[in-house]
Amino acid sequence: MKAGHIEFLVTDLDRAKRFYVDTLGFVATSQDSEHVYLRGLEDRQHHCLTLTSSRAPGVGHFAFRVAEDKDLGAIERLVSAAGAYSRRVAPSEEAGQGEALMVEDMFGFPVEFYARMDAEDWMLQRYDMYRGAKVMRLDHFNIMLPDASSAYSWYVGSLGFGCTETTETEGPNPSLWAAWLRRKHTCHDIALTTGKGPRVHHAGFAVADRGAIMDCADLLASTGYADKMERGPGRHGVSNAFFLYLRDPDGNRLELYTGDYLSADPDWVPIKWKLNDPQRQTFWGAKTPESWFNDAMLVRSPKSGKFQDLRAPSIQDRPDYLLSAH
Amino acid sequence: MKAGHIEFLVTDLDRAKRFYVDTLGFVATSQDSEHVYLRGLEDRQHHCLTLTSSRAPGVGHFAFRVAEDKDLGAIERLVSAAGAYSRRVAPSEEAGQGEALMVEDMFGFPVEFYARMDAEDWMLQRYDMYRGAKVMRLDHFNIMLPDASSAYSWYVGSLGFGCTETTETEGPNPSLWAAWLRRKHTCHDIALTTGKGPRVHHAGFAVADRGAIMDCADLLASTGYADKMERGPGRHGVSNAFFLYLRDPDGNRLELYTGDYLSADPDWVPIKWKLNDPQRQTFWGAKTPESWFNDAMLVRSPKSGKFQDLRAPSIQDRPDYLLSAH
Amino acid sequence: MKAGHIEFLVTDLDRAKRFYVDTLGFVATSQDSEHVYLRGLEDRQHHCLTLTSSRAPGVGHFAFRVAEDKDLGAIERLVSAAGAYSRRVAPSEEAGQGEALMVEDMFGFPVEFYARMDAEDWMLQRYDMYRGAKVMRLDHFNIMLPDASSAYSWYVGSLGFGCTETTETEGPNPSLWAAWLRRKHTCHDIALTTGKGPRVHHAGFAVADRGAIMDCADLLASTGYADKMERGPGRHGVSNAFFLYLRDPDGNRLELYTGDYLSADPDWVPIKWKLNDPQRQTFWGAKTPESWFNDAMLVRSPKSGKFQDLRAPSIQDRPDYLLSAH
Amino acid sequence: MKAGHIEFLVTDLDRAKRFYVDTLGFVATSQDSEHVYLRGLEDRQHHCLTLTSSRAPGVGHFAFRVAEDKDLGAIERLVSAAGAYSRRVAPSEEAGQGEALMVEDMFGFPVEFYARMDAEDWMLQRYDMYRGAKVMRLDHFNIMLPDASSAYSWYVGSLGFGCTETTETEGPNPSLWAAWLRRKHTCHDIALTTGKGPRVHHAGFAVADRGAIMDCADLLASTGYADKMERGPGRHGVSNAFFLYLRDPDGNRLELYTGDYLSADPDWVPIKWKLNDPQRQTFWGAKTPESWFNDAMLVRSPKSGKFQDLRAPSIQDRPDYLLSAH
Repeated sequence: MKAGHIEFLVTDLDRAKRFYVDTLGFVATSQDSEHVYLRGLEDRQHHCLTLTSSRAPGVGHFAFRVAEDKDLGAIERLVSAAGAYSRRVAPSEEAGQGEALMVEDMFGFPVEFYARMDAEDWMLQRYDMYRGAKVMRLDHFNIMLPDASSAYSWYVGSLGFGCTETTETEGPNPSLWAAWLRRKHTCHDIALTTGKGPRVHHAGFAVADRGAIMDCADLLASTGYADKMERGPGRHGVSNAFFLYLRDPDGNRLELYTGDYLSADPDWVPIKWKLNDPQRQTFWGAKTPESWFNDAMLVRSPKSGKFQDLRAPSIQDRPDYLLSAH
Repeated sequence: MKAGHIEFLVTDLDRAKRFYVDTLGFVATSQDSEHVYLRGLEDRQHHCLTLTSSRAPGVGHFAFRVAEDKDLGAIERLVSAAGAYSRRVAPSEEAGQGEALMVEDMFGFPVEFYARMDAEDWMLQRYDMYRGAKVMRLDHFNIMLPDASSAYSWYVGSLGFGCTETTETEGPNPSLWAAWLRRKHTCHDIALTTGKGPRVHHAGFAVADRGAIMDCADLLASTGYADKMERGPGRHGVSNAFFLYLRDPDGNRLELYTGDYLSADPDWVPIKWKLNDPQRQTFWGAKTPESWFNDAMLVRSPKSGKFQDLRAPSIQDRPDYLLSAH
Repeated sequence: MKAGHIEFLVTDLDRAKRFYVDTLGFVATSQDSEHVYLRGLEDRQHHCLTLTSSRAPGVGHFAFRVAEDKDLGAIERLVSAAGAYSRRVAPSEEAGQGEALMVEDMFGFPVEFYARMDAEDWMLQRYDMYRGAKVMRLDHFNIMLPDASSAYSWYVGSLGFGCTETTETEGPNPSLWAAWLRRKHTCHDIALTTGKGPRVHHAGFAVADRGAIMDCADLLASTGYADKMERGPGRHGVSNAFFLYLRDPDGNRLELYTGDYLSADPDWVPIKWKLNDPQRQTFWGAKTPESWFNDAMLVRSPKSGKFQDLRAPSIQDRPDYLLSAH
Repeated sequence: MKAGHIEFLVTDLDRAKRFYVDTLGFVATSQDSEHVYLRGLEDRQHHCLTLTSSRAPGVGHFAFRVAEDKDLGAIERLVSAAGAYSRRVAPSEEAGQGEALMVEDMFGFPVEFYARMDAEDWMLQRYDMYRGAKVMRLDHFNIMLPDASSAYSWYVGSLGFGCTETTETEGPNPSLWAAWLRRKHTCHDIALTTGKGPRVHHAGFAVADRGAIMDCADLLASTGYADKMERGPGRHGVSNAFFLYLRDPDGNRLELYTGDYLSADPDWVPIKWKLNDPQRQTFWGAKTPESWFNDAMLVRSPKSGKFQDLRAPSIQDRPDYLLSAH
């Protein structure tokens, strides 16, 4: 149905809470000694972001919500047929969540599927709770891996995602370089990007409007977090969204995101972009910093509990203007 | 899949075009001597609003998009089983549209279903085309009828809509007074309201943000249309959207609408409101004008071609404070 | 130089502080058992609004800042020549303020003039302090009195204010009905309006932009203050400002105000409006509520310490459409 | 009284008109074969920007408005006493302008002073005329010269400007590096910056709010002008304004500017910044591009009609992080 939640690993839970709750304004639903469970102002569910205490930063898992518990079995069979690993997660093994399926997919990503989550109070009209970036909800994941085409087949062919936009390499025989895929009726629930992987590049969180992003930039600059703004504010070519990329105190990356489009049409033809198009990443033409292509979050294997090793792609992992900068 | 398009009957096509295209900034896809076909900046489809020349204002029909042509047959059988009227509409009988099913439902409404529509250029990133209210797309229909409960059963029980919010009458035995129903992942595609009917109360069009609505109010006031702003700008309690209601030069009503929420959760529990809650209609507490309860658009019967006769509801059609005003 | 500060009389200091500080976000500079001294985020001065504990609501005094202490003597002589009352106020007799001149002018208003005030920390770039309406500073006073023309002569002829806009009555022999006068380079520091007086109609406080006003309306609606929004949000014809009028828990009236213009041109020709012009008060055409013409704040005499008696104007005190409503 | 107007030299008048009028939305008051006279939506004066056809880009002159014609004589005497050049400009020698004084000051800048200018229709409430950046009016000039301290003495000591903010070099014996000076009640009418000069760094134009700047960035990106956005959008530390710097098709630089503060207090103590403070230029911490320190507009001598030769400053002309980049 939608991108459901993500688990960020943080090395200092208190410091992370100051950033996410006190500054960005996420709503804290519950916490224990190892975790803080956060939701957005619009969420009626227990959490969309979990902060988990860890020796190193990264991503524990990300999760999609499915319509019914019986869909877990169907996905289990697909995963098994594809030769990948999965295990059942008992209800409440993850706080607030019903039964789930934890998968280590063929690309090495820790992906959870679940149908039920505890309902929580809606803060959408509690404007007295609005603070910081006024985060509404999780919007999407952006993952980085050496072979975007294989992941495209898995998500679109097997899991039934729709494709809204793509980026291809230049030249006469273009390869798929990135794809924006959706279940809910927005631009995307997950984006697949070519790069050293498996890594999670960022999680995107929806905010109310451009003003919320501007206000948040002012607030971060006033509270000692100016250096946490990595890219933006600006307008994306892909997705048309208005954005600001942040790094949390551990370096985990999140996006404040608003202003994409409705994608409910059944016959949507993907919008195609070329990798070197200067307006693809930032519609206003500003160059993307190198860190955006170098840095991404390691992912923890559900099987081993260790961070996954990285493999490099066989095609270029960034536009020409950054390649030639070296 | 979603609210697809609506046909407004206008008595002066040129005057209507000046209002919708020159002032509000709808994109004109095509026109002939009797019709102007309009779309929003975000639409990739031929039209979301048709202006049709007519001796009297009102609504010709409103339409939902379905996923596939074969869904038309399924709906045809449901309609027939319910004892209502339908007929097939040939491809291109309505400009830009594939095969369709025109229904006169049990409540007297002219409702069309269709799966295919011609693709048109996307204006979303043609910011040089942005004018007026910067209308993005159609969002929803709001219809008025004597028996909202029966219509609720038809839409939710038979057609598979989800319910996001409801309004009930006061007292120990409350009746359903209004319901907000959705197919796409927003607050609603159609709202059912108790009142003299069958009538269409308004069509809601999505705009980018609050600023677009404020700018449009300034523009309307500068161009002789100040008296066309009937209600707002303001914030709804129901839907949480920011709104401005307009009457076109023929008196047809439309809403500029932004800022509702994502409703992709499969287990969404409807938000319940009471009819007399002063924050239900306008969250800021401003009273709704009487014209909002008195006026709505007549609908034309697909069978007879004439406007449908009206029947009054058996329960009150407005909050107590407006009843007692008489 | 500018409208400097105003003293609101409140019957419950704690309740008023919850409204002005906790909700609207004024910055509290200091307080004692009888007073709370407030400033805006942009203010570098001790206070622009004083809340004073009192048995009845109203206005204690309003004050203009002059360039130098010696200007107090010049005003003293003007006041004396006009046969009005004044007395010197010792430094710190009003907290944070240098020497001042308290005047009861010929119209009965308590007007203070002062040149020096203690400097306070600037919160303009402390975005972590931004809350509520994000009030930046005091902008203007709007006073109501039976004879606007005489007050016009005093402010423009004797005190050297410039006139930016006026409203005249209808008909062949129009009278001055209202005037907007300025010292600083904005639309106004004081507006003179015809009505039962002497009363202060409202104090206007500048906010950053329209978004701040919308956000404040949402917040007030979430915190039980929906009924404190008396008029707006909307756009003024006069001043072109975007506004929201509030009543505090005692009924004192303030305006949140943004988006007027620079008036630094030495040869500014006043903009003229007619009293019945429907776009004069609200550019979008919405009718102003009757309470706006009926209610205003009583003023306390600096001489007697009692509220001033009221006299009615000889010309109409509101547009025709409200006269005929009776 | 205020920064009045500026003359930009352009090599292709039609191309410049497409940029300033068709895209940015300046209002064209009049034109002849060599000039186009532009004003903002809020201006009631003939022009605030003149485009003059020229073989090379740069600045013809910039101008301050004074209160009365007799002030021209006073300035003439000051200029003469300082050993600089001036000549009278006859009424209408510059279109729409009364008598003026053209000065070549001691620093080589072409500065005009004038008291009267033809009044033009006010477009502030003609929202149907709002386009592009919705430029309201000229706000300030930013000039670059080797010796900011001397210019500070001239403007503050002789011409009576107030100082709102300064930047000093680092170290135990700091020098004045830049100053923001004002006549009208805003942050500044002119800023003095250390660098190779005499050059004009940019002219700042006031817009309504942040949204206008964002909308303009989208529009520029849609109309082939993405590469004309040199810096921003962002928030300044100095002035607190929200900004976007543009280069016109000739490379002349202008700033879209909104959100500074009122500076009407007579006892304003200048805000002090240090040159290397990373939040001074962009409050959000983004580094300023090198072109911002390298490029500025040449100025034409009123005496010789040729561009002035440049001299380098004796102190550093940019922050350390850009010095060390070489």
